[in-house]
Amino acid sequence: MSYYSPSIEKLIEGFEKLPSIGHKTAVRLAFHMLDASDEDVSEFINSINNAKANLKYCSQCFNITDTDPCPICASPKRDKDIICVVEDVKDVIAMERTHEFKGVYHVLHGSISPMNGIGPDEIKIKELLSRVQNNNNIKEIIIATNPRVEGEATAMYISKILKPIGIKATRIAHGIPVGGDLEYTDEVTLTKALEGRHEL
Amino acid sequence: MSYYSPSIEKLIEGFEKLPSIGHKTAVRLAFHMLDASDEDVSEFINSINNAKANLKYCSQCFNITDTDPCPICASPKRDKDIICVVEDVKDVIAMERTHEFKGVYHVLHGSISPMNGIGPDEIKIKELLSRVQNNNNIKEIIIATNPRVEGEATAMYISKILKPIGIKATRIAHGIPVGGDLEYTDEVTLTKALEGRHEL
Repeated sequence: MSYYSPSIEKLIEGFEKLPSIGHKTAVRLAFHMLDASDEDVSEFINSINNAKANLKYCSQCFNITDTDPCPICASPKRDKDIICVVEDVKDVIAMERTHEFKGVYHVLHGSISPMNGIGPDEIKIKELLSRVQNNNNIKEIIIATNPRVEGEATAMYISKILKPIGIKATRIAHGIPVGGDLEYTDEVTLTKALEGRHEL
Repeated sequence: MSYYSPSIEKLIEGFEKLPSIGHKTAVRLAFHMLDASDEDVSEFINSINNAKANLKYCSQCFNITDTDPCPICASPKRDKDIICVVEDVKDVIAMERTHEFKGVYHVLHGSISPMNGIGPDEIKIKELLSRVQNNNNIKEIIIATNPRVEGEATAMYISKILKPIGIKATRIAHGIPVGGDLEYTDEVTLTKALEGRHEL
C-alpha cells in the first residue's frame, strides 16, 4: 500500500528515475516542488524544455551547443589546425578547464567497443576524417580518449587511419595523477608512467 | 567564463536550485535529461505539472491529497473520534508507516515559533478547534508535534485550549530510540525517558 497520493507518488517516481537520486532524496525533491512557487516550477520546466529544444550538435566538432558552429569553433582565437579528439561532450569541458588548449575539438560520441557492438562507423570517426581531408593546414590531432580498453582501441584506430594521409597524431600522456601516491598506483599506470618518463 | 552553452547552463542552474543537489550532481542530471528520450522527459515534466495542479489540502485534516476528503479521512475503517495532530504532511507518512494508528490526522502545517513570527493563527489550530467542536464524540487528541522547543510549545498551547472544553489531549512519549545507546543519549532525552518509565 502506498502512503502518498497518486500525484505525489508519480512525482517521486519521476525523480527516482534520475541518476544518483534515491528514494529519500526523491521524496525531498518532490515535496520541494510542491512547496515551490509556480514561477520557480515553470522556470525549472522551461529550462528542461529549452535545453531539449535548442541544443544541437555543432556541425563541425559535434559538441553540444545552442549555436552552430559552437562558440569554440566560431572563435577567431582558436587554432583550427590543431584538433583534440575526445569521447564525450563532458570531456570538452574537462579540457577547457585547463585553459591550456587553444585548438578546436572533435567529439566522437563514444568509443570503439566491439563487446557492445560499437564499431568505427557508430562514432564520429568518418566526420573526423573528412574534417582532416578538407583542411590542408592541419598540424596535429591530439587523441584524448579515455585511458581504458575502448579509448585505447579508438586511439589506435584513429592514428592508423591518419598515418597514410601524413597527419601527425599524438596521444595525451598516461601517468601518476598529480597529488597521487606511488604506493597506491596500479601497475599498468606505473608502467605507463615509466615509459613516458622525460629528462629533467 | 562559462564552459557550457547557455541552455545547458540554465538547465544545470535549475537542478542546482533543488535541495541536496550540488554542482556535480546537477551537471550529471542535466546531461541525463539531454540524453533521455522525449517521452521520458515529457512524462517527468507532466508528473511535476500534475502534482502542482491536482494536489490540494484535505478540507478536514489538511493533508496533501488528490481527492477531497483525503483517502484517510474518507476511509470507513478509520476512527474519526481519535485525531493525531502533526506538524507536517511528511509526519503523516511517518505515522502511517507504523501501521499502528487507526484514527485520523490533523496537519498543522508548522509549529508555533515566536522567533520566526509564527503564532497560533499562522498554523491550523483554529481549524482543529472547530473540528473538535463539531464532533461531540471525540475520544482523544494525540499531539505528535516534534520534540523540539517549537513542537513542545505548540503541544502545550493545544492542550491548554482543549482542556476547558473537556477533551482528552495526550502527547506521544519521548525517550531513547529503539536500538539507541544510553551512553550517547543526551541528558534531556534521558530525563524524559526516566519520567516516562512504566511498570513491567
